[in-house]
Amino acid sequence: MGRENELAQLLHYISDAYPGHLTILDAKRGDIGSTAAYYAQEAYDRYGADVVTLNPYLGYESIEPYLAYADKGVVVLCRTSNADSNWLQNDPNDPLPVYQRVARRVKEWNTAGQCLLVAGATYPEELGVIRRLVGSMPLLVPGIGAQGGDLAAVMANGVDTAGTGLLISSSRGILYAGEGESFADAAGQAARALRDEINELRTG
Amino acid sequence: MGRENELAQLLHYISDAYPGHLTILDAKRGDIGSTAAYYAQEAYDRYGADVVTLNPYLGYESIEPYLAYADKGVVVLCRTSNADSNWLQNDPNDPLPVYQRVARRVKEWNTAGQCLLVAGATYPEELGVIRRLVGSMPLLVPGIGAQGGDLAAVMANGVDTAGTGLLISSSRGILYAGEGESFADAAGQAARALRDEINELRTG
Repeated sequence: MGRENELAQLLHYISDAYPGHLTILDAKRGDIGSTAAYYAQEAYDRYGADVVTLNPYLGYESIEPYLAYADKGVVVLCRTSNADSNWLQNDPNDPLPVYQRVARRVKEWNTAGQCLLVAGATYPEELGVIRRLVGSMPLLVPGIGAQGGDLAAVMANGVDTAGTGLLISSSRGILYAGEGESFADAAGQAARALRDEINELRTG
Repeated sequence: MGRENELAQLLHYISDAYPGHLTILDAKRGDIGSTAAYYAQEAYDRYGADVVTLNPYLGYESIEPYLAYADKGVVVLCRTSNADSNWLQNDPNDPLPVYQRVARRVKEWNTAGQCLLVAGATYPEELGVIRRLVGSMPLLVPGIGAQGGDLAAVMANGVDTAGTGLLISSSRGILYAGEGESFADAAGQAARALRDEINELRTG
């Protein structure tokens, strides 16, 4: 690419400077197969991301092209952290709530160990249901920090049998921890504080 | 913007050169409210699109920021044209299939007449159900052409009481109608042929 945009520059900087670190492109893509194939190329080839977030509304056809990249991963939205989505994701009238259908399907699609699920920290009970459905599949957990998720409840319900398996994400809580010249220090402090809090809950 | 990308240049060209034409940005966005607000700004301000397609999986919070633009519109995915999505959108075990919940919700959200729904041509029966649920709301109908949707069935099931209300979209069928120097002529011919076919079915 001759003219890389800022996002591509940032992702390539991260993978060059910190080769052991995983990059997750939170694009929440969801499109028909022919379009999904180009979005997969964009995420993995253009941006060089290791993992991309995907929306399950269009089904397997919209996920499959990403799984063709053997050394890459996908995170499928399952139980998102926000409000206002129960009527779709978790309607008590459904014999099997949609988020549980998504968890079961993604477990089936995960033949090569490329899949993760989004399970919001704001719904720790459903996080526990998802954990029981998918075994040791890693879960990406947004909603800690600005969205007010309960970290202790997330740990209690979400860890796998090895006491791990959670990618706990605080975005705004770290990114906007401070302003001005000290923003990077403040972000670093917020990230380390959250890490310590998680580790205390692991050994507790 | 100092450095507009090709998509922005194209959309601004269309709105400058053909001011009466509607532009629909098929971005299929679906994210939490704080992020959705920036995606709305991108679609409407940066790209200058009139309408943007949205995914309903995250609920109202992911749609609301777009509706704040009073002179702009949204198209919410309801029954998509692709296969492999029945288990989520139209599971016969659900007391109310998800696509029908989406249609009902979007009708509620449509207080200012800004909303449309995607109803794929490949499922003309569900298209008829959606039409009955949403009255005269316009429907965007992909799946004609490359995806093999049945135009006559779409017209029979999808038009509103005034015999209109459908935005029938053939993308690949027109875009790739021809190759080489004559591609624009071939695309024009394919578009006019589809238009004529639609109009025959309207008066027939």
